[in-house]
Amino acid sequence: MSTRVVITGGAGFLGSLLARRLLASPISCGGGKAERVGELVLVDLVAPPADLVSDGRVRSVVGELESTVAGLGDVDAVFHLAGVVSGAAEADFDLGLRTNVDGTRAVLEYARGHRVPPVLVFSSSLAVFGIDPAVGPLGPVGDDTLPRPQTSYGIQKFIGEQLVADYTRKGFVRGRSVRLMTVSVRPGKPNAAASGFLSGIIREPVAGQRAVCPVPPDTPVALSSPRRTLAGIVLAAEVDDETWGSRTAMNLPGLTTTPREMAAALDRVVGAGTSELIDWTDDPVIAPMVRGWPADVLARRAERLGLTAESSVDDIVRAYLADNPGTAR
Amino acid sequence: MSTRVVITGGAGFLGSLLARRLLASPISCGGGKAERVGELVLVDLVAPPADLVSDGRVRSVVGELESTVAGLGDVDAVFHLAGVVSGAAEADFDLGLRTNVDGTRAVLEYARGHRVPPVLVFSSSLAVFGIDPAVGPLGPVGDDTLPRPQTSYGIQKFIGEQLVADYTRKGFVRGRSVRLMTVSVRPGKPNAAASGFLSGIIREPVAGQRAVCPVPPDTPVALSSPRRTLAGIVLAAEVDDETWGSRTAMNLPGLTTTPREMAAALDRVVGAGTSELIDWTDDPVIAPMVRGWPADVLARRAERLGLTAESSVDDIVRAYLADNPGTAR
Repeated sequence: MSTRVVITGGAGFLGSLLARRLLASPISCGGGKAERVGELVLVDLVAPPADLVSDGRVRSVVGELESTVAGLGDVDAVFHLAGVVSGAAEADFDLGLRTNVDGTRAVLEYARGHRVPPVLVFSSSLAVFGIDPAVGPLGPVGDDTLPRPQTSYGIQKFIGEQLVADYTRKGFVRGRSVRLMTVSVRPGKPNAAASGFLSGIIREPVAGQRAVCPVPPDTPVALSSPRRTLAGIVLAAEVDDETWGSRTAMNLPGLTTTPREMAAALDRVVGAGTSELIDWTDDPVIAPMVRGWPADVLARRAERLGLTAESSVDDIVRAYLADNPGTAR
Repeated sequence: MSTRVVITGGAGFLGSLLARRLLASPISCGGGKAERVGELVLVDLVAPPADLVSDGRVRSVVGELESTVAGLGDVDAVFHLAGVVSGAAEADFDLGLRTNVDGTRAVLEYARGHRVPPVLVFSSSLAVFGIDPAVGPLGPVGDDTLPRPQTSYGIQKFIGEQLVADYTRKGFVRGRSVRLMTVSVRPGKPNAAASGFLSGIIREPVAGQRAVCPVPPDTPVALSSPRRTLAGIVLAAEVDDETWGSRTAMNLPGLTTTPREMAAALDRVVGAGTSELIDWTDDPVIAPMVRGWPADVLARRAERLGLTAESSVDDIVRAYLADNPGTAR
């Protein structure tokens, strides 16, 4: 026996990381026996990286979710990572709704058509939380804090969580929504996410290039390394339904820090003066969005499952250097 | 100057009540000057009651939301009351999604096309709250309590709240989502709502007919009379944006009671022995749904705006008798 898996957004950064993990070692779907992945379908708007395409178990499907997922056939697990990121969903309201809401519905309908309900992991976001101007500052946000999203992306992810919960309650899928923290450090080029600078202010200076920080240095943020984020996504698929518990979304752990502390870690880990490559500004579009995200995230459910955040920004920088050898100047 | 208003679900019980109120006296839209209603468009699957059709200011539009609202032209206020009720949305998952989610999106898109963003009142429900089996009993639910809907209806209403909030944040509409309590006593025939018996166990015995209570007598419930519910809906349209406050939905006030107390009120107000017409059962489908709804509802925001619940079930029974003369046996 082997396992069949679909990853939407499978050509993206997290999707590719997850694909490599699934190809490298067996996975248990929803508490079942761990089995090797025999077929891995990567759905995205573009083809996945070459190392994935060249693996005989990988099938790449390129196109919009609504026109591609229906015909993929039954699988054991669906990782739904595809979506329009925060900056893009704010700039193009209709695109965000279409991809993040209608696309998620297409994925859920695909899964609903299975003979045996598959495990379905949905990547939500800490961006479901926001500072409501009529309510005031955000305190620590936990699994039972009412999200009051203040971006279209946050609203759309929160709607996705509701749909996953109800498809699960109805027995159509075995859904698990995880709220990802800002992933730092993402390798490669900047994307359209408003949070992109939280990778850029490490990644670019490490490579000897200038980077822009669009928020004041003491803006609190919550970060998670790619490794820890991936661990949360995989665990969500592997635990059994009872261990998973509530159908409400689960916060993943995040490290609370600031761009100022990130700059200091850069100087400690990479070399004194590295952070001088950061240009500090206060972007009128990005800064308010970022200030509206929570920085103090309580992840009690995730911690009970054994997940933890990094213990320091230094560790986040070291993880980036270890995972991306040859990237430093 | 006169005001133009659209009511979706305008042929229904609450929609008709609201229509009569709007035709009878001026309304202020979002804090503006109170003006008489010059045109009132009632959208529903059926034609409205005869008294409304015969009013020269009323235009009846019969059809699905998605095929009717787009062409209605600009108005000052939209009351979006149309929807598939709880029992029906649970029995037909696709119908619920189509009407309660896609229908709401159609209404929001219609409103978004206006030259001046209209006030838009969305009738949500206390059914957004539910008892999550992995979390345990519901305590009192307030405006800032995390809803964990346990019915498709509750999920769909909660999604509607999110959409209204984001269309408002983007400046497309001036949205106000109000969470209605179970309305009791509704006149007329039973509908497909799982909460329908909370009207039936008053209405039918008052008319000398038998009624079924599908939940145990001491099941706590939160009720609001049609009058008080209407007051909440109208107030939501009339206050200015700043007074309204958060874009997150607002609980309307409800009276916490039980079917047993309702039966006792019936005997006190209508006559000793009236409640003997109630047949007590424990329906395996309806009872769990009703037990999952909150009965202790905190409505701080609504109370700050001057809204209150009835002070006793006796008042609810009296309100029914006063509003429906000639209905008693």
